[in-house]
Amino acid sequence: MISKSQIKLISSLKLKKERYESGLFTVEGEKPVSELVKSGWPVELILVRSDWFEKERPVWLKDIQTNMELVSHHDMERMSQLNSASPVMAVARMKQPDWQWQRGGDGFVLVLDRLADPGNLGTIIRIADWFGFQGVLCSSDTVDFYNSKTIQASMGSVFRMPVAYGELTEWISKEDPQRVFATVLGGSPVNGQKFGTGGLLLIGSEAHGLHPDLIRLAGHKVTIPGFGAAESLNAAVAAGIMASWVKLGTG
Amino acid sequence: MISKSQIKLISSLKLKKERYESGLFTVEGEKPVSELVKSGWPVELILVRSDWFEKERPVWLKDIQTNMELVSHHDMERMSQLNSASPVMAVARMKQPDWQWQRGGDGFVLVLDRLADPGNLGTIIRIADWFGFQGVLCSSDTVDFYNSKTIQASMGSVFRMPVAYGELTEWISKEDPQRVFATVLGGSPVNGQKFGTGGLLLIGSEAHGLHPDLIRLAGHKVTIPGFGAAESLNAAVAAGIMASWVKLGTG
Repeated sequence: MISKSQIKLISSLKLKKERYESGLFTVEGEKPVSELVKSGWPVELILVRSDWFEKERPVWLKDIQTNMELVSHHDMERMSQLNSASPVMAVARMKQPDWQWQRGGDGFVLVLDRLADPGNLGTIIRIADWFGFQGVLCSSDTVDFYNSKTIQASMGSVFRMPVAYGELTEWISKEDPQRVFATVLGGSPVNGQKFGTGGLLLIGSEAHGLHPDLIRLAGHKVTIPGFGAAESLNAAVAAGIMASWVKLGTG
Repeated sequence: MISKSQIKLISSLKLKKERYESGLFTVEGEKPVSELVKSGWPVELILVRSDWFEKERPVWLKDIQTNMELVSHHDMERMSQLNSASPVMAVARMKQPDWQWQRGGDGFVLVLDRLADPGNLGTIIRIADWFGFQGVLCSSDTVDFYNSKTIQASMGSVFRMPVAYGELTEWISKEDPQRVFATVLGGSPVNGQKFGTGGLLLIGSEAHGLHPDLIRLAGHKVTIPGFGAAESLNAAVAAGIMASWVKLGTG
């Protein structure tokens, strides 16, 4: 049975500070938890609402090697970070050493500057996964990867894609500028751009765009042409459009 | 001064039922409210947090013709539908007759089937605005346009774009099938598709995709090719990618 102190610890993981002190984070929902289990990521504990478990008897939970606890509806609500708790939740261990990620071979990498919205970050990791990018590099001040909304929005892609945080100028300056593409306003249209076989695709936050120091390191400044009155696109939508042209354009 | 019953009414507008009974909805945040005012949409009341107003004296609020009330931090929190209330909120009147929208001239229209996420709907309306689509048609069971998350995510585009709800098969069957493009899995790749100068772009929900009856009405089944392990894309991201190829592709 789950103890009161465990419930308290798990519900505290909504705070970034508590996540980093304990090295633990939560994953909620049947699809994200099953993706977590499939990926081989280190899992500490799986919590399942007992009435749901009795009724559904989900096959994918039958043979798992991880500790599983049945909990009440009330306790699940206390631990959940969602408005309405899902019947399945996992407590997983952060993978610290993986932040020291090194690229291997040719291909594209997404580079994110100061993304502030956790849902957008998860959606962008899912985009990178869909288009077969090698990984995602984030500026140190980008929203925390272990935020439950990021995990949720990525639909399991966070457990597959290499994601690293660090000093972007350092990473970008190692790349040939002709292979660095900055997404900006007022650059050359994305549909006329040749992207080649690999390089870095830079995306800034909606509020601040890309930092000028990063734009300076890019050999190409690229824009998604607009035709209406909207002033901008959502950052995840812009990343998706850019990624589609990088992989599917005639470059 | 704002009365207790007004506070109660405004905070009840988070419920769809209350919005449709009163014909009112709320708009929160400086950018969305200023876009609302600019658009000429009928506004009943603008609420401004008094301490913020004293400090900021925002120019765009100076000359507005609408009733404006200064309210306390506490009252603003009670009326807000956001986790953390914004200093500006508007109560606006729904535009019922506009749902009977008729297309004029050539161009593209986005058609949304059973979208369930209010944030995605707002993001998609913003995409339609960016790419100069003529309007957005939604199936009757698509999430409510007046949901505060939809308004928020659209960044003002909801006040500019014609959006209509109704029976999609009826609308689509009026169009030449060669000008109807359904976004599906396993269709022809979007980067080889010619879209021409106008028509309908159909997008389904993440959970259910497009209804088979709608796919049957489309002359073209189009897919965003994937290269990695993700099973799908976020519906707004897919809409953004498709819209970019419709407008910027070589078709």
